[in-house]
Amino acid sequence: MELTVYLAGQIHDSWRDDVKKLAETKELPLQFVSPQTNHERSDNIGEAILGKQPGSLYKDEAASRINNFRTQVLMEKADIVIALFGESYKQWNTAMDASQAITLNKPTIIIRPKSLIHPLKELSEKANVTVETVEQALDVIAYIFE
Amino acid sequence: MELTVYLAGQIHDSWRDDVKKLAETKELPLQFVSPQTNHERSDNIGEAILGKQPGSLYKDEAASRINNFRTQVLMEKADIVIALFGESYKQWNTAMDASQAITLNKPTIIIRPKSLIHPLKELSEKANVTVETVEQALDVIAYIFE
Amino acid sequence: MELTVYLAGQIHDSWRDDVKKLAETKELPLQFVSPQTNHERSDNIGEAILGKQPGSLYKDEAASRINNFRTQVLMEKADIVIALFGESYKQWNTAMDASQAITLNKPTIIIRPKSLIHPLKELSEKANVTVETVEQALDVIAYIFE
Amino acid sequence: MELTVYLAGQIHDSWRDDVKKLAETKELPLQFVSPQTNHERSDNIGEAILGKQPGSLYKDEAASRINNFRTQVLMEKADIVIALFGESYKQWNTAMDASQAITLNKPTIIIRPKSLIHPLKELSEKANVTVETVEQALDVIAYIFE
Amino acid sequence: MELTVYLAGQIHDSWRDDVKKLAETKELPLQFVSPQTNHERSDNIGEAILGKQPGSLYKDEAASRINNFRTQVLMEKADIVIALFGESYKQWNTAMDASQAITLNKPTIIIRPKSLIHPLKELSEKANVTVETVEQALDVIAYIFE
Amino acid sequence: MELTVYLAGQIHDSWRDDVKKLAETKELPLQFVSPQTNHERSDNIGEAILGKQPGSLYKDEAASRINNFRTQVLMEKADIVIALFGESYKQWNTAMDASQAITLNKPTIIIRPKSLIHPLKELSEKANVTVETVEQALDVIAYIFE
Amino acid sequence: MELTVYLAGQIHDSWRDDVKKLAETKELPLQFVSPQTNHERSDNIGEAILGKQPGSLYKDEAASRINNFRTQVLMEKADIVIALFGESYKQWNTAMDASQAITLNKPTIIIRPKSLIHPLKELSEKANVTVETVEQALDVIAYIFE
Amino acid sequence: MELTVYLAGQIHDSWRDDVKKLAETKELPLQFVSPQTNHERSDNIGEAILGKQPGSLYKDEAASRINNFRTQVLMEKADIVIALFGESYKQWNTAMDASQAITLNKPTIIIRPKSLIHPLKELSEKANVTVETVEQALDVIAYIFE
Repeated sequence: MELTVYLAGQIHDSWRDDVKKLAETKELPLQFVSPQTNHERSDNIGEAILGKQPGSLYKDEAASRINNFRTQVLMEKADIVIALFGESYKQWNTAMDASQAITLNKPTIIIRPKSLIHPLKELSEKANVTVETVEQALDVIAYIFE
Repeated sequence: MELTVYLAGQIHDSWRDDVKKLAETKELPLQFVSPQTNHERSDNIGEAILGKQPGSLYKDEAASRINNFRTQVLMEKADIVIALFGESYKQWNTAMDASQAITLNKPTIIIRPKSLIHPLKELSEKANVTVETVEQALDVIAYIFE
Repeated sequence: MELTVYLAGQIHDSWRDDVKKLAETKELPLQFVSPQTNHERSDNIGEAILGKQPGSLYKDEAASRINNFRTQVLMEKADIVIALFGESYKQWNTAMDASQAITLNKPTIIIRPKSLIHPLKELSEKANVTVETVEQALDVIAYIFE
Repeated sequence: MELTVYLAGQIHDSWRDDVKKLAETKELPLQFVSPQTNHERSDNIGEAILGKQPGSLYKDEAASRINNFRTQVLMEKADIVIALFGESYKQWNTAMDASQAITLNKPTIIIRPKSLIHPLKELSEKANVTVETVEQALDVIAYIFE
Repeated sequence: MELTVYLAGQIHDSWRDDVKKLAETKELPLQFVSPQTNHERSDNIGEAILGKQPGSLYKDEAASRINNFRTQVLMEKADIVIALFGESYKQWNTAMDASQAITLNKPTIIIRPKSLIHPLKELSEKANVTVETVEQALDVIAYIFE
Repeated sequence: MELTVYLAGQIHDSWRDDVKKLAETKELPLQFVSPQTNHERSDNIGEAILGKQPGSLYKDEAASRINNFRTQVLMEKADIVIALFGESYKQWNTAMDASQAITLNKPTIIIRPKSLIHPLKELSEKANVTVETVEQALDVIAYIFE
Repeated sequence: MELTVYLAGQIHDSWRDDVKKLAETKELPLQFVSPQTNHERSDNIGEAILGKQPGSLYKDEAASRINNFRTQVLMEKADIVIALFGESYKQWNTAMDASQAITLNKPTIIIRPKSLIHPLKELSEKANVTVETVEQALDVIAYIFE
Repeated sequence: MELTVYLAGQIHDSWRDDVKKLAETKELPLQFVSPQTNHERSDNIGEAILGKQPGSLYKDEAASRINNFRTQVLMEKADIVIALFGESYKQWNTAMDASQAITLNKPTIIIRPKSLIHPLKELSEKANVTVETVEQALDVIAYIFE
């Protein structure tokens, strides 16, 4: 039984690589999908495909349509969603993806540092499990295969 | 035809009163519901009902269970969701409520200042309408009754 | 038992008034809802609320967000959908509304002239009933109350 | 991860071949399904299977039942829907398929020429992405695999 | 709490009147809806509204579209479905309505004589309750209000 | 693309073998599932597994629980349902299965002789396609693969 | 806004009266529904309506069909479910009702004594809120109306 | 056609091994999934991953979040649920899993000894089939493949 895991969260560092490496080390039968992690590409994808837009509002709207299309296709395929929050950035996409996953009854794990306990408390409570590290998140998934 | 509107968003100022007054002025047949807007009450409701918890993580978990219960009951009753984002605070509950509403096919309006166009672009695109002021949000709702 | 009927279709003549008058004559306990029937208002509602847009594509996008918001709120309230097609105009909104209604299992009546039998054949077949006149559509609804 | 794409739209030229060739060139792991693209076969399938009908209304009804059966089976299998609109023909089936796909939460791309921006504005806004060329549509899908 | 009860079953005698009278006697807060019980009207409704059809197959098709429209509107309103089977007639509409109600999770009571135990065994097992008389069916509903 | 077809209908002759042979002849990529076709086994399965029951009502109830379990598992796997009605037997299970399939949006073909047009008219109208022979039903399915 | 509350749990003492009195004292706009609370009536309802059964298994089966019918009708009407567990009895119906409510996304409060923390831990975690007393449960509901 | 079976029930003896061995003997194409069957591991998994908790309530809460996560992932994959009740233990998780499965329309078999007929009567009636032994449960599943 192979499971597909959607990795929601910021795209400013390589945390997804850590998840994938750890999954390999643990020999977990997981396939990972995620949003576009090249930040510049993600911001520019609208104009890259649809052409120059008349201002940043419209550039953002064009990009977000294509980013949301991607997320909808991939999240539909996911058996599990991991949503990672860090101390920087607004991360409203992460909250949006986690809330959508929970509403769709996708089993969801939130990773967040201790410093974010309070502002994330309602979302954490709705997720299945909230942990502090990538390693703990994979421990939770590994538990399925025990 | 009376419609029920859930007002998601920060609870640090009286923007909900502005919405309600404006709705009255426009004589719109709307009933408003919302999260607990007394911030202290919202943070303490877990311990107020369940008793002293062993630390802030557990206090937050207790409060968020009851806050989420309230939101689930009231959002189920809502025909429309308005989610307001401001320049302060993390507002992950606002993003969570908006994303849940959209996933449940509740017609959703986002209010956000120009400064938040970029970080909210994916959520804005998924909402039905995004505006900048409370007045515009009510103009959108008033349009239903024209 | 009062039923709510959504009247989808072109907004270039007063066919909805004919429906309403006939329903009154027949003393049917029906409440009617519909898209914005003032064509100019419908086309301009985006700029009216959100301000001047940078070109007609963007003006149309802004208007359609608000028109779709209105339709989603009102169709959710509808027990029955009537979709009227005439010989003029592209009427893709009518097809869109009828198909959405059918997919949502809203009982749906299509009104179309004989000349449109062929191009509407698949949509007609998916609707519950297809008739040629407003009078026939109301006969079908009146039959519920017999 | 192979994805199945339903190609809704007119059946009067070979645009679906263009899509397939381009997908091959780009080496995208896509499987394509579509309505019957032989127009005559599509119009006659009812009588071909069920026998001579008493007039064109009944011939059309018979054909459309079988065409709708085919579409329902194949759209259920689709991960993505592309709906192409051109400048000719009424294309109500295309609008019907696109609206059904959107209502079923299938990620949907509309392709339409600039000349159709206005009459398709509400449907375009409800689709995930609207583009002008087959190439752009495949760029959007290719973005999923980046 | 008033409940709406859909009365599915043959339309050849006045069993629905028995149900209604008994409900009145027991002072149960019930509203009853049902298919068209005038058999001739039910068979002819297609031609009555849509005009003469080219043969009995087409007359039946026209009538059944309008009868199914009526059933869909009214069953949607029902909190409870009673489906009565008797010893005569094929009663496939009754089986169709009961199976639809059960699939939609409408609480369903089947009334059937002892002689039909065997041929109705699978449908009876899927219904909530199977009884032999109208009186028993109302006893089951009355139990809700105890 | 292989499709799974559930064959609902009477179990008194070998019509399912005809379907399977014809599908092989036509080289259609179909997998067939069906209810238990050994009539005696179907009637006795309750007592065979659960032991002697106190009378035929209870024997039938026990058998029908296991038959319904089987149908639920297999229909869930089906992409298409064929329901065949013949001139003998009450065939309420066939009507039940067809109605359940339609309510679950499974594409459904009804096969029935001309003599049953009238009593099956409402169910026929709700099915996607109604034909008279096994051959026609497979022609309809073959059309998907053209 | 009046809310309907289903009171699941044992029927051996008058805890439901305590809930109702407290709700009155607090002037909460609540309507309460519940299973049959007369234990003997609940056990005998099958034979009372359907007649003598051939043994206790069959008597229980008959009663449970009618009890489940009642619960299905009333839980459908409920906005909120309270499920109370005490130290006696197996209370599998309580667990069944709570789990059904949670699966249907009904906001659910569990009341249980400290002694049951461990055996109820998974169900408690899935419920929205778990408390120890009737008073706390009503405090949670009262919080909605603040 | 391979089917996946979720084995809900107590984890104090090796009944799942009996099921698996019997399935092998009968050469049934089944894949089995289940909750964590190492009782100590199941109780401690919260602290094992999340660290020491401030008391048993919090330890249980942490463990149950991870156990529920596991169940949600695996039950989603299941085509069939078997829920076994024995004479010892409270087994509220078993009732919770069975009720969730039934509410999600997963075909469900309950295994329970005669001594539990009465307290399990409502849950048994909602399940598809109730049997007394593991062997009978596999006979029911084997019947699918006849």
